[in-house]
Amino acid sequence: MDVTIIGVAGGTGSGKSTLVKRLREAFEGDDVITLCHDFYYKAHNDLTYEERTKLNYDHPQAFDTHMLVEHLKALKNNVAIEHPVYSFVEHNRMTETVTVKPSRVIIVDGILIFENKELRDMMDIKVFVDTDADLRLARRILRDVCDRGRTMQSVVDQYVTTVKPMHEEFVEPSKKYADVIIPEGGFNSVAVSMLIENIRSLIR
Amino acid sequence: MDVTIIGVAGGTGSGKSTLVKRLREAFEGDDVITLCHDFYYKAHNDLTYEERTKLNYDHPQAFDTHMLVEHLKALKNNVAIEHPVYSFVEHNRMTETVTVKPSRVIIVDGILIFENKELRDMMDIKVFVDTDADLRLARRILRDVCDRGRTMQSVVDQYVTTVKPMHEEFVEPSKKYADVIIPEGGFNSVAVSMLIENIRSLIR
Repeated sequence: MDVTIIGVAGGTGSGKSTLVKRLREAFEGDDVITLCHDFYYKAHNDLTYEERTKLNYDHPQAFDTHMLVEHLKALKNNVAIEHPVYSFVEHNRMTETVTVKPSRVIIVDGILIFENKELRDMMDIKVFVDTDADLRLARRILRDVCDRGRTMQSVVDQYVTTVKPMHEEFVEPSKKYADVIIPEGGFNSVAVSMLIENIRSLIR
Repeated sequence: MDVTIIGVAGGTGSGKSTLVKRLREAFEGDDVITLCHDFYYKAHNDLTYEERTKLNYDHPQAFDTHMLVEHLKALKNNVAIEHPVYSFVEHNRMTETVTVKPSRVIIVDGILIFENKELRDMMDIKVFVDTDADLRLARRILRDVCDRGRTMQSVVDQYVTTVKPMHEEFVEPSKKYADVIIPEGGFNSVAVSMLIENIRSLIR
């Protein structure tokens, strides 16, 4: 089976996950699977909840990228994997895993997936979702306060102390590896249709 | 006949024309035609050659954009057009014209095609080719000195006095209208294949 890996990178709140969701929804059946780099946040059973809330989740070291690379290699070799599950409420890896079977198209998303050379080199198509920083912050606030129950102050503090500096140090520079840059991600209907059409041709 | 207009904008030397050439070459027959905004540089029979060399060719006013818009409307209405021919040697419009028949896909390219709202609004897919300024200058020097017989000094003078300031004033800001941004344009094989696949699906 010919496997194509599509990477979708971009800053927090860029419209990355919405893009992946719209691509996923366009295909029924098992031809397209999605994997988030977020699933691979490192486990921190050695730390207390309080300590875990203080970690820098926007640094490349926060992820077990090696495991994701190994999982992608397995899927390319037609072997199913068990991806870890991460809880944004517990700030930790859960004990359960999720089975993913090999498929024709694998969409991988995450803020830092183009930063790691080994991971980046596995991607056949590298898509970077580019959205103005103010819009990205607005969306992050809505998501973290409304959906994840955090306080406005904690969201802004985290944004200023780690999210923004890590974006500028690692995410933004990784845009130069992109094959295609999509402004607004999943909110850009012309680009979404274009990507859907391409995935359709890969499956055919 | 359903007509799709694809706009390809981007700075001088970005790889725009190479992209259009590669798209054009991928399709035999009459399904895809290309039109350059450059064809529509205004005629200046009232000026001497010396005066014409001193004009600002990177300003929106240098183009007869109204004529291009009318031609696109005609083609959308299944009416053939006669596009003007511009000579970069004479710095003037020639007397001959070229007949273009209506087609399923029309690719329009030019540095300023997203700057004009009426023209931009006619585009179904807006592609911006984004390439670093130093690489763009390098390509422009090679093109103008080797292919167009200009002196190195005249190319650099023109670049500094009009090309660069006009790029910063009009071309770069028009990137915000793009649906898709392609780094390196025609030199980006992944993106070229993606666009070809999309045009193929439009024709089908």
